[in-house]
Amino acid sequence: MPTVPLIPEDSDHPTVRRVFDDIKATKKIDFIPNVWRALATHPEHLELCWTRLKAIMAPGKVDALTKEIVALAVSATNGCNYCINSHTAACQKLGLTLEQLGEVLAVVGLFNQMNKLADSYQVEPDLRPRPW
Amino acid sequence: MPTVPLIPEDSDHPTVRRVFDDIKATKKIDFIPNVWRALATHPEHLELCWTRLKAIMAPGKVDALTKEIVALAVSATNGCNYCINSHTAACQKLGLTLEQLGEVLAVVGLFNQMNKLADSYQVEPDLRPRPW
Amino acid sequence: MPTVPLIPEDSDHPTVRRVFDDIKATKKIDFIPNVWRALATHPEHLELCWTRLKAIMAPGKVDALTKEIVALAVSATNGCNYCINSHTAACQKLGLTLEQLGEVLAVVGLFNQMNKLADSYQVEPDLRPRPW
Amino acid sequence: MPTVPLIPEDSDHPTVRRVFDDIKATKKIDFIPNVWRALATHPEHLELCWTRLKAIMAPGKVDALTKEIVALAVSATNGCNYCINSHTAACQKLGLTLEQLGEVLAVVGLFNQMNKLADSYQVEPDLRPRPW
Amino acid sequence: MPTVPLIPEDSDHPTVRRVFDDIKATKKIDFIPNVWRALATHPEHLELCWTRLKAIMAPGKVDALTKEIVALAVSATNGCNYCINSHTAACQKLGLTLEQLGEVLAVVGLFNQMNKLADSYQVEPDLRPRPW
Amino acid sequence: MPTVPLIPEDSDHPTVRRVFDDIKATKKIDFIPNVWRALATHPEHLELCWTRLKAIMAPGKVDALTKEIVALAVSATNGCNYCINSHTAACQKLGLTLEQLGEVLAVVGLFNQMNKLADSYQVEPDLRPRPW
Repeated sequence: MPTVPLIPEDSDHPTVRRVFDDIKATKKIDFIPNVWRALATHPEHLELCWTRLKAIMAPGKVDALTKEIVALAVSATNGCNYCINSHTAACQKLGLTLEQLGEVLAVVGLFNQMNKLADSYQVEPDLRPRPW
Repeated sequence: MPTVPLIPEDSDHPTVRRVFDDIKATKKIDFIPNVWRALATHPEHLELCWTRLKAIMAPGKVDALTKEIVALAVSATNGCNYCINSHTAACQKLGLTLEQLGEVLAVVGLFNQMNKLADSYQVEPDLRPRPW
Repeated sequence: MPTVPLIPEDSDHPTVRRVFDDIKATKKIDFIPNVWRALATHPEHLELCWTRLKAIMAPGKVDALTKEIVALAVSATNGCNYCINSHTAACQKLGLTLEQLGEVLAVVGLFNQMNKLADSYQVEPDLRPRPW
Repeated sequence: MPTVPLIPEDSDHPTVRRVFDDIKATKKIDFIPNVWRALATHPEHLELCWTRLKAIMAPGKVDALTKEIVALAVSATNGCNYCINSHTAACQKLGLTLEQLGEVLAVVGLFNQMNKLADSYQVEPDLRPRPW
Repeated sequence: MPTVPLIPEDSDHPTVRRVFDDIKATKKIDFIPNVWRALATHPEHLELCWTRLKAIMAPGKVDALTKEIVALAVSATNGCNYCINSHTAACQKLGLTLEQLGEVLAVVGLFNQMNKLADSYQVEPDLRPRPW
Repeated sequence: MPTVPLIPEDSDHPTVRRVFDDIKATKKIDFIPNVWRALATHPEHLELCWTRLKAIMAPGKVDALTKEIVALAVSATNGCNYCINSHTAACQKLGLTLEQLGEVLAVVGLFNQMNKLADSYQVEPDLRPRPW
């Protein structure tokens, strides 16, 4: 159960209404996901979060599906149930197949293992030129 | 400093030699990265790790660059210095530009924030059909 | 479902009884929170945990509300559902308003993002005098 | 070593210059911390991060020191070396004493322990009214 | 709710069938745990995971119970509900008593605390000879 | 560099001296590890940490080496450099061989992977009787 009352989708707080409308239009959905309804308990923070997320997730030099895959990889590594559900659904909507999901999660699992092995042995970065 | 002695690149342990040769050939590099030299202190584990990594990272229904981006996202979320260095370099080698890196890391940062906000408010997954 | 049987509130094990009574008196509550009932399956550990928590959470040079805010920030960063619920409630009881909660969680979200960006770019600490 | 070239403090990129000037003025410092110089490799992201950080960290219903303490608690829980150094210094600058630091970190340590114990025993939240 | 359809225990996909049969025989159980049914949505990954897990968890120079205790300690530190349940049950099956569980989890809690305190104060490793 | 001045080993603060002497006697070492010298900046917290650690790490129904292995597994999962170094050394001192270390870390790596896969697929615990 959320720790705060979720703000109704038809809130008439001007900031909340503006953000909620933009969320629906941008994501092409007809409901407000729960996390935004919780954030709306603090309208200024809601707006800061949404405008930034909208800017960062817009396709740029990296396409929208790759960005959602990164979002899923981060959420899985953090074990955030809400976000795993939400970004898995978003990946599927953008065309990720079940077989591709299997490959992506295999990579997620693999490097959660390798990260801890590198830490476990206290391995130092290989000497080589800086990438850029 | 590593907690174990790194096995020399020219080790003559047959399993180690076989894996080291395959690492160089597969990754098209002329040195053995430190993490594999540490894992080689337990040759059977080295081989298990390498054969699995090789299988999972081979391009399949998801391309090699996307897989490296996922590896970087996981490593950054876990804060593993060795792996962040290694996968940033691998992404660059596969063509990721500095501008694209900025976009990828923006997504990594964003969802590390959003994951914690979703957890903080104990938000429950939105009801909707299962993706697949 | 807990992995161990929760010890009843009216347990007659002398250590458990002593700790349970002190929990109720110190926290001014009339029930034993579930985590303490689980810890009571190992009475010595229960007592070690409780006496230490009591000592650390007592107001000192830092006030009780700030300590609960820190507890919430840690629990949110770790994504511990039980503790997020418990420390959110404790903060509210000590006077934190919904608006202040929004500000605190905004900071929690922000630095979960910034931490990962600093790690992602492998940024080294700025040179400056040690704080103390 | 950072994975990207740190942008010089006297960069003449207009966005970078605007943000760098604002960082110095807002934080009342005469240098640009490394994390901002790394973020400046992607000027739009730099600006998004800075404007949001500035908005969230401004004193509101929660004072500046409490916000820095939360930032330190989050950074310590994530084990981010850069941020631990930076927020410890910021707390000291805002008046936190060494003794108060000891109390804050005691709370950080305590709930990193308690979070994992609550998870370990799979304890469910106590039933009680929602805080707000 | 899982994000993918769990593959039925009586799947007739040859890889899945082979792995499922081996899981039952190796673990001496008469059902397929849910995690394997989810992994079976990508049969090649299922097989990679299972053969590696089987190799690593076989008693070697470290006994089976100690390995399960390590699995529980890792799962508790990561806060993975599924795995905490599964490895607690496995530990009990191998003879761990409730009292021993209390001791193990006390150590898990303790070092989750101490890890964060060492990070908080940015303590450097003590100088001493490398272990091996 | 530590964020606080490390308290000298020959401190004449009575609590610090008492704890430092006990650390040397209990651990049979002739120096004070850095983490305790940092904690000594808050003598009451130092004493709380040490007395609890001493109680929990004393051999009981679980032997000392298994406890150190758990400490290492936790520290590796958290990526705490100081503690990985310290507990690897402690394991070696208690008789863990390099080959056994390889097996232990293989288990650590494996379940960091499996934990994230279970989370990724949002798998629910298998129904079965509670362990105890």
